[in-house]
Amino acid sequence: MTAPLVRAAVLMIGDELLSGRTQDTNLRTIAEFLAPLGVQIGEARVVTDEPAEISAAVNALRARYAYVFTTGGIGPTHDDKTADAVAAAFGVNIGVRADARAILEAHYGTTEINEARLRMARIPDGASLIANPVSKAPGFQLGNVFVMAGVPSIMRAMLEDVGKRIEGGAVVKSVTVRAKGVREGDLAAPLAALQKAEPDVSLGSYPWYQPPDGYGVHLVARSADEAVLARARDGMLAIARDLGVDGEVL
Amino acid sequence: MTAPLVRAAVLMIGDELLSGRTQDTNLRTIAEFLAPLGVQIGEARVVTDEPAEISAAVNALRARYAYVFTTGGIGPTHDDKTADAVAAAFGVNIGVRADARAILEAHYGTTEINEARLRMARIPDGASLIANPVSKAPGFQLGNVFVMAGVPSIMRAMLEDVGKRIEGGAVVKSVTVRAKGVREGDLAAPLAALQKAEPDVSLGSYPWYQPPDGYGVHLVARSADEAVLARARDGMLAIARDLGVDGEVL
Repeated sequence: MTAPLVRAAVLMIGDELLSGRTQDTNLRTIAEFLAPLGVQIGEARVVTDEPAEISAAVNALRARYAYVFTTGGIGPTHDDKTADAVAAAFGVNIGVRADARAILEAHYGTTEINEARLRMARIPDGASLIANPVSKAPGFQLGNVFVMAGVPSIMRAMLEDVGKRIEGGAVVKSVTVRAKGVREGDLAAPLAALQKAEPDVSLGSYPWYQPPDGYGVHLVARSADEAVLARARDGMLAIARDLGVDGEVL
Repeated sequence: MTAPLVRAAVLMIGDELLSGRTQDTNLRTIAEFLAPLGVQIGEARVVTDEPAEISAAVNALRARYAYVFTTGGIGPTHDDKTADAVAAAFGVNIGVRADARAILEAHYGTTEINEARLRMARIPDGASLIANPVSKAPGFQLGNVFVMAGVPSIMRAMLEDVGKRIEGGAVVKSVTVRAKGVREGDLAAPLAALQKAEPDVSLGSYPWYQPPDGYGVHLVARSADEAVLARARDGMLAIARDLGVDGEVL
C-alpha cells in the first residue's frame, strides 16, 4: 500500500511574467524540489500584481491543494503587493512585525533602514517567517500557503526552510525512454494499450526534433510504485523495439 | 482617446510542465507576439492532462478574457485530450472532420494514416482550423478560444494564422531604465511618488545581480500612451540621477 498523493499549487505573481519581459524558471525549480519530498504540482497560475487577483487565486488554490507556493511581490517597492493580498485572502491583519523588523535592521543597520525596506517586515498575523539567507528579507508561511521571493536565487534558498515543513505523500518517480527515429503516430496505439494494461502509471509521449533530420519521441512513465514503473519501462522499450529501434533509458 | 485594453489568457496543458520535466517558453512567445497587436496577457494557467481540469480552466478563462490561447495536448497519443476537453467545455460534439482529415491524408499518404493520426483530425463542431505549416496537424479556433500545439516551433508557426483573427486594442509599450549600483529600497519612495504622479503608467522595479559585485535595478514603465511613457522614462532617469547614477535606457 503506497502513501496517498499530496498535491500542491504554484502561484507566480508579477506583471513581468505575463508581459513576456521575464521568463519564469521558478515553477520548474519548485516542482523538482518537491518531487522527492512526495509532493506533486497539480496546477500553476500566473497573475498580475493586482491585489484582488492575487487574493482570489490564493483562496481558490489553498482550498483545493495541500500546499500553495507563491513567488514574487514581496520586495520593498510599491508594486510589491503579495503580503497584503495574502493577508486579505485569509482575512487577517498585517503590519510591521518585530521579528521581521529585527532581521532587516540587523542587515541594513539603522542608517539604511527606511520606510520602503520596512515594507518587507509586513507580515500577516499568525504567519511564521521563512528564512532568506541571500538577501535577508523573509518570506512567510500562513496556513498552507508559503510566500516566497520571485528572484530565482532567493526563492531557491527559501525552499530549504520550506522543505522542513512539508508533509509529503507518495514519491512519484519517472522513467524516460528515448526512441530515435520514431514518430508519435506510429507508437500511439501500443502506448495506449500499455496505458490500459498499467492504470497505475501515467504515460506521456513527447516528440523531439533536432534539425536537419534528427527526430524521435521521449516516452515518460510516472508512478509512485517502483514495480509498476519497471514494467512500464520494459513496455516502453518493447514498443520502441517493435518499431525497429533500440530505446535508450534516460 | 486611446483604444481600450484587450486582455487575453494563456492556458498551458500538460503534466510535463508541472512535473518540471519541461520548461515552458510558450507563454513568453505568445505575450511577445500579441503585444504589438494590442493584446495583453492578463492571466496564465498550467493544468494537467486531466480533461475535467482542462474544461474547467477553458470555461473560467473564456468568460473572463477577450481571448484564450491554449498550448499542448493536440497530438495523436492517448494523453492528448485537449480537443475533446474544449468541445466538452463548449458543450458541442467532436469528431473527425473532412477538412482536417484531408490535410492529414495529404501529408501522411494513405499508407501512414492510422487511427492515432486521425485523432488529430478530431475538431469540435463549429470550430475553424488553424494552419500548421510545420507538421500539418491543425489547431482550431472555437469562439474566442485558440487551441494550439505545445511544441514551441509548431506553436509559433500557428500564431501567424491566429494573428490575422485578433482584434486588438491599445498597444501597450514599455521603456526600461537600467540603473547599476542602485538598490530597490533606496528608490522605492521616489518610484512610488512617480507612480502616484503618473497613474496611467504601470511602473515595475526588478532587481538584478551579477556576482561577484554587480547589481542594480531595472525600472520598467508600461503604458499605451506614448507621452505618458516619455514622462515616465524621464522620471525614472531622474530617480537614478538623484541616487548618483546614470540610468541607461534599454
